[in-house]
Order: sequence, then structure tokens, then C-alpha cells
Amino acid sequence: MEFEPVNFREKLNLFDEQWTPKIIAQMNDYQFKLVKIEGEFVWHSHAETDEVFVVLAGEMVIEFRNGRIHLHPGELFVVPKGVEHKPVAENECHILLVEPAGLVNTGDTASELTAPNDVWI
Amino acid sequence: MEFEPVNFREKLNLFDEQWTPKIIAQMNDYQFKLVKIEGEFVWHSHAETDEVFVVLAGEMVIEFRNGRIHLHPGELFVVPKGVEHKPVAENECHILLVEPAGLVNTGDTASELTAPNDVWI
Repeated sequence: MEFEPVNFREKLNLFDEQWTPKIIAQMNDYQFKLVKIEGEFVWHSHAETDEVFVVLAGEMVIEFRNGRIHLHPGELFVVPKGVEHKPVAENECHILLVEPAGLVNTGDTASELTAPNDVWI
Repeated sequence: MEFEPVNFREKLNLFDEQWTPKIIAQMNDYQFKLVKIEGEFVWHSHAETDEVFVVLAGEMVIEFRNGRIHLHPGELFVVPKGVEHKPVAENECHILLVEPAGLVNTGDTASELTAPNDVWI
């Protein structure tokens, strides 16, 4: 067992790519991932699972077919399973995702934004 | 569906008690809980699950039988299932826990510090 904390800032400094989640920790069958986003993602949903967004730096909006939510640092939101959503960030925003291991970022929507789902940093 | 973010600071302002986790969100069968700690907790383990600690404010130490880890704001640590641990904080520390719904804070160790495991704020 390694007695080393996972420091969000240090991990965020290790990559620049946007929309490519990086795994930083695993708890049972769930993973914690960091991602940098800017611009508009694709509409998608995850039929099998809820998904948690926590904003670490910057601001983001999650659009839904019937509403939207604005998230600031220190705020968390649970996107319920099966609910279509589209993340958007006017400027770069740094996010912590919590979701089942193996989840694909674009869910049911194949896209050029579909990223590998197994990259640890 | 309610389009309301969960703001850690606002939720932390709703209670003063220490060592009593408050549920703020649920993702599938997992819950996100806030807890304020100060002093020494009891040695315990959770035979059935890993447990995630994220420090939001202050500092804490998690002691293990064969080591310890010091956590600062913006740092995360996964305590593996079955591993005995004792959280300690010299001054009040605010933590986000991620763990299966229904988990008891003192695990296998009944104690006067055993808290209700179903309190939402």
C-alpha cells in the first residue's frame, strides 16, 4: 500500500489535452477522473449509470433538453442515468468526474470527441 | 429533475457537529457525504468496501497500522477495503467522503462516535 495522496493540482499540471478524461483513483468499481474542457461537447447519455461532475476550477454549464445548470468551483452535480446532457464551457474548466470504471465519455454518441477510457495519470 | 448544484461551502455552513457525516448527493448506490472532524477517531475498517477521502479545508492525517498519510485541501486518498485506519485532525478539517450508501462511519468498531448513516442536508 502506497501512502501517497492524489493531489488534483499536481495531476492537472500533467496534461493539456481537452475532453480527454484521465483516471487518478479507483474505489471499488468506480473511478475518479480529471478532465479539462472548453467549448461544446456532444449531446449524449449514459443508459446504465449516473455520473458526477465536480468543478475544481473555472465554470461550466451542463445543458439538458429541458434546462441547464451552471457550475462553479466547489459545486457538484449528479447527472441521472439515461438523461441526455451536453457539457459546455466558455473558457477552460477543470472537472473531477466520478463514474463506473470503463465508462465512455460520449456515452451512446460515437463522436470524434470519444476518448480512451483507460488512461491513468 | 432539479437543476440545482450542490455547493460544498453552503452545505458545510448548515451544521457544526463533528464526526457526523451528512449526505449531500447520491450516484447509483454510492453517496457523497460532508463531515467535519477534529481530534482522533477510532481505529476501524470496512470489510466490504474502499472509502474515499477528499480534503476540502484544513488538514488531516489518516493513520494506518504500518504508516500514515497527511492530506491537504485538494487531495484525495482511497482507503482500501479491509484496511484498518484512524482519521486524525489537529484542528477542524472539512472532508468529502465517497462510499456506498448505508456505510457506517465506524465500520466494524461500535463506538460512541458511531453516527447515523442516513442524514441528508
